[in-house]
Amino acid sequence: MNYQSILEEIYEEIQPEMSKGKVADYIPALASVEKEQFAMSVTLADGVQYSVGEASKRFSIQSISKVFTFSLALKIYSKELYKRVGVEPSGNPFNSLVQLEYENGIPRNPFINAGALVVTDALVSHYGDEYTTLEAILSFVRRLTGEPGICFDAGVARSEMDHGDRNLALAHLMKSFGNYENSVKATVKTYFKQCAIEMSTEELSRAFLYLAFGGKDPISGEEFVSSSKAKRINAVMLTCGHYDASGEFAFHVGLPGKSGVGGGIAAVVPGEMSIAVWSPGLNRYGNSHAGTIALELFTDKTGRSIF
Amino acid sequence: MNYQSILEEIYEEIQPEMSKGKVADYIPALASVEKEQFAMSVTLADGVQYSVGEASKRFSIQSISKVFTFSLALKIYSKELYKRVGVEPSGNPFNSLVQLEYENGIPRNPFINAGALVVTDALVSHYGDEYTTLEAILSFVRRLTGEPGICFDAGVARSEMDHGDRNLALAHLMKSFGNYENSVKATVKTYFKQCAIEMSTEELSRAFLYLAFGGKDPISGEEFVSSSKAKRINAVMLTCGHYDASGEFAFHVGLPGKSGVGGGIAAVVPGEMSIAVWSPGLNRYGNSHAGTIALELFTDKTGRSIF
Amino acid sequence: MNYQSILEEIYEEIQPEMSKGKVADYIPALASVEKEQFAMSVTLADGVQYSVGEASKRFSIQSISKVFTFSLALKIYSKELYKRVGVEPSGNPFNSLVQLEYENGIPRNPFINAGALVVTDALVSHYGDEYTTLEAILSFVRRLTGEPGICFDAGVARSEMDHGDRNLALAHLMKSFGNYENSVKATVKTYFKQCAIEMSTEELSRAFLYLAFGGKDPISGEEFVSSSKAKRINAVMLTCGHYDASGEFAFHVGLPGKSGVGGGIAAVVPGEMSIAVWSPGLNRYGNSHAGTIALELFTDKTGRSIF
Amino acid sequence: MNYQSILEEIYEEIQPEMSKGKVADYIPALASVEKEQFAMSVTLADGVQYSVGEASKRFSIQSISKVFTFSLALKIYSKELYKRVGVEPSGNPFNSLVQLEYENGIPRNPFINAGALVVTDALVSHYGDEYTTLEAILSFVRRLTGEPGICFDAGVARSEMDHGDRNLALAHLMKSFGNYENSVKATVKTYFKQCAIEMSTEELSRAFLYLAFGGKDPISGEEFVSSSKAKRINAVMLTCGHYDASGEFAFHVGLPGKSGVGGGIAAVVPGEMSIAVWSPGLNRYGNSHAGTIALELFTDKTGRSIF
Repeated sequence: MNYQSILEEIYEEIQPEMSKGKVADYIPALASVEKEQFAMSVTLADGVQYSVGEASKRFSIQSISKVFTFSLALKIYSKELYKRVGVEPSGNPFNSLVQLEYENGIPRNPFINAGALVVTDALVSHYGDEYTTLEAILSFVRRLTGEPGICFDAGVARSEMDHGDRNLALAHLMKSFGNYENSVKATVKTYFKQCAIEMSTEELSRAFLYLAFGGKDPISGEEFVSSSKAKRINAVMLTCGHYDASGEFAFHVGLPGKSGVGGGIAAVVPGEMSIAVWSPGLNRYGNSHAGTIALELFTDKTGRSIF
Repeated sequence: MNYQSILEEIYEEIQPEMSKGKVADYIPALASVEKEQFAMSVTLADGVQYSVGEASKRFSIQSISKVFTFSLALKIYSKELYKRVGVEPSGNPFNSLVQLEYENGIPRNPFINAGALVVTDALVSHYGDEYTTLEAILSFVRRLTGEPGICFDAGVARSEMDHGDRNLALAHLMKSFGNYENSVKATVKTYFKQCAIEMSTEELSRAFLYLAFGGKDPISGEEFVSSSKAKRINAVMLTCGHYDASGEFAFHVGLPGKSGVGGGIAAVVPGEMSIAVWSPGLNRYGNSHAGTIALELFTDKTGRSIF
Repeated sequence: MNYQSILEEIYEEIQPEMSKGKVADYIPALASVEKEQFAMSVTLADGVQYSVGEASKRFSIQSISKVFTFSLALKIYSKELYKRVGVEPSGNPFNSLVQLEYENGIPRNPFINAGALVVTDALVSHYGDEYTTLEAILSFVRRLTGEPGICFDAGVARSEMDHGDRNLALAHLMKSFGNYENSVKATVKTYFKQCAIEMSTEELSRAFLYLAFGGKDPISGEEFVSSSKAKRINAVMLTCGHYDASGEFAFHVGLPGKSGVGGGIAAVVPGEMSIAVWSPGLNRYGNSHAGTIALELFTDKTGRSIF
Repeated sequence: MNYQSILEEIYEEIQPEMSKGKVADYIPALASVEKEQFAMSVTLADGVQYSVGEASKRFSIQSISKVFTFSLALKIYSKELYKRVGVEPSGNPFNSLVQLEYENGIPRNPFINAGALVVTDALVSHYGDEYTTLEAILSFVRRLTGEPGICFDAGVARSEMDHGDRNLALAHLMKSFGNYENSVKATVKTYFKQCAIEMSTEELSRAFLYLAFGGKDPISGEEFVSSSKAKRINAVMLTCGHYDASGEFAFHVGLPGKSGVGGGIAAVVPGEMSIAVWSPGLNRYGNSHAGTIALELFTDKTGRSIF
């Protein structure tokens, strides 16, 4: 299949969509991003990569980082992790406190904010402090991509912290239920730093290859998580990866994936490839508008749905 | 792959699980079913079938019927149907009124009770009356299986109606929001009749073959729904098919499927086969305890997860 | 104190308010009532009555009828009644199903719709059938007022039933929890008939006198409920009598009272008098706009708050 | 009326109740209080005081302090305060986040924790810093009682802060909605200090006299709040003063009052007297078990209900 020409077709068809949607505006650092940008990259098992648009330009991966921290924590804690965070869709917005209160401080899944905070808190407990934790997260992403220069944007992280009251509320609520182990302020700061990691679609599609191939990088042969854990991360991405539009995404795109408010989405075709797309305009669920359409076009054109 | 011996292995391993769980007891007709029963059938593209246990014994398919009515309604109404029912996981028990009230009478998906009632109501609007609707549902299932003798158990349907207050409440609530078109009593009765359809695992796995093969029966060549609709039905089964344990099912089994409180579960491996399993003891989410484990064993042994 | 001149002052001050608010429009029979009408009556211990406006014109008392049925049921069942309905404010709209579901079918108080339905259901259980129940309710109101001609408007009741899905949903939901004893349809019809009772402010203020005087009519000497029950009915009116604006009413008016969507409000000054007011325009909480202001003016001018 | 002998009767009747209930145990400093203690004091307009039990022993007033801060803030901000906090009963536990989220960070009333935090935050905005605010609160209580020695227990306040995650969550959530002006940490600390104020029932019943007499101390003649504000504070105490048992309290006791988890309750008979009671064993709603019963006995014996 000629992936390059498929990507180019998509790039053309997506043009009228790039001006739609709304750039994330809850922090100045994200609000200033120019909306009409697009990039898409596909990485195959042998490392061959196809791209269109600004595929080497880095952007804020935001919630996509939750896949990396969940992978790390699952490797460390295995089943123990599920005592602190579930794997069910939430049926509520990503940052809701309601369900968390009814369900005694146990977040529904690792991809809503509360769940991701618990995962970061668990990493801090393991690594001993937030500095070492952040290093471990960055090191994980750097090994996945072979790009030692990947880092977070300190300005974005600081700006998030300045507007971080809802996440602080989630963390304190979990702490009041006994499901939080470390300093709320320090872990929330770490969480904002992990969200502020910047990657390009080339790097992101490269990074997700391990999830398309049973947890093992098909190029280097390095196993990042076990095969059964990789399958389960994919299952959670499919059912919970796109906030309150996860069902829509499964329905229209049909691939396990994870989106971020920076406009990025990463997805995998199990056994075949990983895909990353970026366009900053968001739909009303907080997922990239043009990015979601691009992925739907991709699965339509290639017939690559898991269903 | 030797499916027969895999099924036999599963049958043996599942023995200690058959006594666990709890038979549905909200109506006498279901409560009287003997718990320690098990059956499992696999149907391949060419119609070859493998089975263990009481695979020709019919049981009450209950909520599995929602897949058939959703298929029928999607064929008739296409995208129009989504104005009346969504495709998102609910994050709430299958019969909750809370979300329905907050979301103005539009059920989250066609597999929670409210959603299935709306689907049946839409069928009644199309077919003109509840008698013709029930005939159409039965005829659909008979054509899928080639078994003209498939019918519903009138005693079970009556017993459901005697204990049907919560479903009546759901239907009246939707009617108060303008999302219900026909007589509440008559449509709820029709819904209970569709739930009381009885099928064996042999018949059920045969019936689901169309969803494993893009909506078209691979044996007869008859198209029951279009390819894109089949994919979407599978997506909704994966994200919403098992009530408030859909995430767990995706996580552990990794196949699109639908369960019923009669103890049945039907699932598909896209492009390969359909599977039905039955064991009446239910876990705390209302899904067959031994059935869920049997399917997890099946995907472990065959490597047939969609992830 | 010259009550007549106080009422006349209020009548004048209230003129600009009569055009505000919105007549109840969920049923045609109520929607057709002319908005710019007003009446107010005060009845003292000796039966002397002061009125302004259309004080002898009957209107639909709607939810004010809940005070009469609660009185009757409390007399019959005493503390047993509290197993089926609470005395706490609900913090939710009058017809919400959410709290009812979380709290297992036990309504918060007898003045939200679910609670009033349970009370009517309890009366039907006591009187044997809905016809006798309705007679008992009408007879109670006729004895309270000495007006044998008080009746309900059959057209309003029928119109309510035609739009009664939410109340049917509430009743079925309670029945699913085992907190409903009789036919849903028949009791809901009875409930709509009791709501369609028509009284004037003269009659209504006369009827409420027993609650201002410890359950005993100060003129006839007849005891309708015991002194302690009368106090408790007043307490429930104060905390729960005005839907989700009960706190506001206690805050601004400071008297136990009950409103109805027909635009009526009845209130008592314990040990002194009873007051009824009517004006069909409703505020956003479903309480009479001009009526609420008139009562606030009355307590301001007379200093007659319970606080 | 011989109040002293009524109090002594109550003291005797209450003996078997003193061992019931459960001392607040969420912080060590409160958990260590001996349960079987009781005190009750009544203060009349002329300052004459009647007491039984350990009426001069100080205890932690906890949420009763919310009445003092609400009074202060209402005096300062008048109607402006209602933009930030409502006057409706919540229908939810005192520290619930659910309603706060649905209602965009505006707490239902000043007596649930979220509402009290907003009130303290408003005081800090007015007084400029938390130190001056705390001084103002203490000074207010000292002037009300004429007891310059009233202070807070620093150990209790610190212990609350150590377990203060839920209150921190509430404050951060309100801040995320823009309804919080000062440092969360500093204001929550101030709030815990105000809750840790220690008073005896003699002092507490003396302090509440202004609310029984239209905001003006009947002995000194000093006006602490205006007459209309005093009425409204009483109205809010009646509808919202006892968490999720406010309806029960209005129903059984029939007086405006406010309870605290330290086991104290203060109440007023408008125009006549103020009452304080203390017994550390709490009922399931977090209100003093023996204290509530003692107040019910008091209104039964004296006929002093507002209804």
